[in-house]
Amino acid sequence: MSSERPLTDDLGFLLSRASGAVARSVSAALGPLGLRVRSYSVLALAVEHDTGVTQRSLAAVVGLDPSQVVALVDELQDRGLVERAADPNDRRNRLVRPTAEGRRVFAEAHRLVTEQDDRHFAQVPPERLEAFRDVLRRVAFPGA
Amino acid sequence: MSSERPLTDDLGFLLSRASGAVARSVSAALGPLGLRVRSYSVLALAVEHDTGVTQRSLAAVVGLDPSQVVALVDELQDRGLVERAADPNDRRNRLVRPTAEGRRVFAEAHRLVTEQDDRHFAQVPPERLEAFRDVLRRVAFPGA
Repeated sequence: MSSERPLTDDLGFLLSRASGAVARSVSAALGPLGLRVRSYSVLALAVEHDTGVTQRSLAAVVGLDPSQVVALVDELQDRGLVERAADPNDRRNRLVRPTAEGRRVFAEAHRLVTEQDDRHFAQVPPERLEAFRDVLRRVAFPGA
Repeated sequence: MSSERPLTDDLGFLLSRASGAVARSVSAALGPLGLRVRSYSVLALAVEHDTGVTQRSLAAVVGLDPSQVVALVDELQDRGLVERAADPNDRRNRLVRPTAEGRRVFAEAHRLVTEQDDRHFAQVPPERLEAFRDVLRRVAFPGA
């Protein structure tokens, strides 16, 4: 044993292991709906902003390159879950909006994702979970 | 806005974003030492168990397939940072041990990783950080 704290105390290491554990079970749960973690995130944001959201905003929140977001939106659009429409405030802009089918699939996917989150965090008391979420938010979005 | 909690409150989503943010800066910091997050983790575990650790234990802690661990150990061995030696308790077993150079590079890498962790968590009071680490540990290693 070295005198330093062990790797299993390192916050970056623990974040990576915890994130991987949740992502694996969420991916498995979403599989039957034909969604993965990333396409679920894009669909979730489209449903939240149902008057439309720009691909740039999607990229900023999900933390992907714009080109990756375009591919995910293409995939969701091919499946009829989102559509691209002209921005009424700026006709040169295209907004991503959910379809009725997209809202329906999202509701089902959200239920499955929540089930997995609940399973992983079942042992954590609610007030500690709020504090935990707050720290995550600060690290994930330091400027916000 | 849907009536559900927004994606940016979802624990799996926040874990993934926070983990990604820390991993990116740790990777950048380790680059000049020729290490990445995964090879750093394997080296860290070898230094912690300096009488030797099996590749199976490494795989379990780091959360990788044994074949991925073998490749990482090969890489560290080629650079003279670890060596494989016969297990004195079972000659058929091979143990991974750090070299003197491996200990030296690890000490420097550990300093850089700690700097990045500190930067990301600078705003979080120490007692909240302990609670945060405890929740991460439960999610990362639910059986432990």
